[in-house]
Amino acid sequence: MADLMQKVWQDLAPPNRILMGPGPSNVDPRVLRVMTHQPVGHLDPEFLNVMDEVREGLRRLFRTGNGLTFPISGTGSAGMEASLANLIEDGDKVLVFVKGYFGDRIAQMAKRLGAEVVVVEQEWGKAFDPDDACEAIRQHKPKVVAIVHAETSTGVLQPVEEIARCVREVDAILVLDTVTSLGGVPVLVDDWCIDVSYSATQKCVGAPPGLAPVTFNSRAVKFLQMRKSPCKSWYFDALLVKTYWGEDRAYHHTAPINMVFALREALRLIEEEGLENRWERHRVNGQALAAGLEGMGMTLLVSEPEQRLPVLTTVLVPEGVDEAHVRLRLLNEFHLEIGAGLGPLKGKVWRFGLMGYSCQKRNVFLALSALGAILREEGFLCDVESGIAAAQEVYQNFSTVAVEV
Amino acid sequence: MADLMQKVWQDLAPPNRILMGPGPSNVDPRVLRVMTHQPVGHLDPEFLNVMDEVREGLRRLFRTGNGLTFPISGTGSAGMEASLANLIEDGDKVLVFVKGYFGDRIAQMAKRLGAEVVVVEQEWGKAFDPDDACEAIRQHKPKVVAIVHAETSTGVLQPVEEIARCVREVDAILVLDTVTSLGGVPVLVDDWCIDVSYSATQKCVGAPPGLAPVTFNSRAVKFLQMRKSPCKSWYFDALLVKTYWGEDRAYHHTAPINMVFALREALRLIEEEGLENRWERHRVNGQALAAGLEGMGMTLLVSEPEQRLPVLTTVLVPEGVDEAHVRLRLLNEFHLEIGAGLGPLKGKVWRFGLMGYSCQKRNVFLALSALGAILREEGFLCDVESGIAAAQEVYQNFSTVAVEV
Repeated sequence: MADLMQKVWQDLAPPNRILMGPGPSNVDPRVLRVMTHQPVGHLDPEFLNVMDEVREGLRRLFRTGNGLTFPISGTGSAGMEASLANLIEDGDKVLVFVKGYFGDRIAQMAKRLGAEVVVVEQEWGKAFDPDDACEAIRQHKPKVVAIVHAETSTGVLQPVEEIARCVREVDAILVLDTVTSLGGVPVLVDDWCIDVSYSATQKCVGAPPGLAPVTFNSRAVKFLQMRKSPCKSWYFDALLVKTYWGEDRAYHHTAPINMVFALREALRLIEEEGLENRWERHRVNGQALAAGLEGMGMTLLVSEPEQRLPVLTTVLVPEGVDEAHVRLRLLNEFHLEIGAGLGPLKGKVWRFGLMGYSCQKRNVFLALSALGAILREEGFLCDVESGIAAAQEVYQNFSTVAVEV
Repeated sequence: MADLMQKVWQDLAPPNRILMGPGPSNVDPRVLRVMTHQPVGHLDPEFLNVMDEVREGLRRLFRTGNGLTFPISGTGSAGMEASLANLIEDGDKVLVFVKGYFGDRIAQMAKRLGAEVVVVEQEWGKAFDPDDACEAIRQHKPKVVAIVHAETSTGVLQPVEEIARCVREVDAILVLDTVTSLGGVPVLVDDWCIDVSYSATQKCVGAPPGLAPVTFNSRAVKFLQMRKSPCKSWYFDALLVKTYWGEDRAYHHTAPINMVFALREALRLIEEEGLENRWERHRVNGQALAAGLEGMGMTLLVSEPEQRLPVLTTVLVPEGVDEAHVRLRLLNEFHLEIGAGLGPLKGKVWRFGLMGYSCQKRNVFLALSALGAILREEGFLCDVESGIAAAQEVYQNFSTVAVEV
């Protein structure tokens, strides 16, 4: 009977894609290799050393001295939910700034967790003006403020320093989503006075998806300790998880051991490259890609250059072009993945990620030349030569920067 | 500056442990190797095929035809929380049978989620008598009943068929924790009428920790659809995740791609071995270990042989022996990990896991001989020879069964 039902599965042989979508990104082979170690116990003395290194590496990556800094055992959205679930009690007023798909996700999660959610919206493709944001904060006097630093749905980078100062004025807690920014653009948790931040491993941090780095400062920890009701999520309760990732080393749940190995190696690679060099690599490649796309005659969604996120570039699909067909051709003919639009941008934009190991000069040139060739075949007369020249010009201006890893 | 701060991290070189604790267990090298594939996008057509195979493999593993069967993107406790969060609304009466540490965890989670929790307790080390359990169900008429099939803290196997019938009588939903049983002992979700079950990958399923297989039957799905309030957890909301793992393939969150690769290979190995053969391997090795420990003069916590879980054997620490010292010696001198006691059993028992790839005859002999040698040195005169002979006798009775993988 068992034999009859037995299904023959082939060897796993996933295609070797160049991942230039909104994440996951490609991963340095060194990171993939450490995952082949046999797991060790989650309380093994040798694993506790690995945890110490991961905590230290994450602190350096977030630019923080926060004691409560660790990876949540889940993907980026788990980091979002963990941050919110820890801070929110029934009826708490939470102000969410929404300028894209992921800001909206924050608002949805906060509502489910029992918050009274106030949403302030901005057009997708634009950042909030800090003065307007501060006015909203002063008006609503929320307990918690949440905003996305790098909006993955639009490619907008949000300046947050001034907003953070204003959050302190009204004695609220600021949660910053750095899912797409951490490791790719400056995230200065302590300098900017960010109370809570969460990210993910599969974008600019350089590991596969599966963990969500988070950090809570001492104001946030005090806030958690003053809760009247326990965190609704046992799994995400930071004060419980603290007993495991902190000094007690008490059992909470079994950490995803091999993913922690991967994160450690990714953090080690970041140290080897140097975080500032890494930001520069992302900045230059992103600028070259944007220049190349504009040079080819395409229009970027984010009109203000200083609001453009170098790690994710969103471009309008030219009139009359079948966006899904072009994406599928890139995937099938070049093994090149780019992202589609989300929400109201569905069908209207493409999203080009240049994150972590995917963020390399050769990928910029591949994307420009492949997209250009396909668009010409699809009847959109783009100027591939000008695009390539514009990208190359950017690199010439930064010739001392390492743009390959 | 960056150079000055740069910390030199060594190559990752975790010890190659024999994992005979309560999980994580060792992993077949084939499973570890597939994790070195470059990730692909979570909506890549090739990845959707992998997801299809994983869903089918999980259905066959749970012995169910349930459409809503998929891995939660988190570890076993995430599976527990996901199951409860989906079923519970504020004020719902939830009956939890507690006979160990993990039953208690269910009760804690359910309370945090707003349930009115009724706890029925049994002595740690014993299963519930199904008649007593049914009486409690009829008396309390709860909306949801939760029970642990294989209690990892005690090594007790709970018969559930009769209890499941009684849950139907009162029109409640039954949640079965199969974290430690799935893949190691029979779990027949459809035959037993289990409405919801969750497990973990790092015990008898044979992959590293990081995913939590769950299954919801059509009664449970209807129950979810009838909720008055949305699931408090966006991340764990089964009806949302269903849009991704189900037919729509809509984006919900980024799956932990490389962990899904690992789970697929683990499921493939289960198919190759045959599920019944796998149960038999766990049964025989577990029986041999138990016979060996008793043969050496030690006492098992679970006094009723038919309640003993073959995949996890709990033994009392002999009077006067320093349990932590013995465990540390096993770890340092043999690279052999065994588990300590949890909760009221802390310091009083050792837990020997034989799960997945760790469940091999050679590990049974290693554990018996190493423990015996150390105990003798620590002054407890155990009869190692009788222990080994007793184990060997068990294997002779089942000489046709493959007890190595």
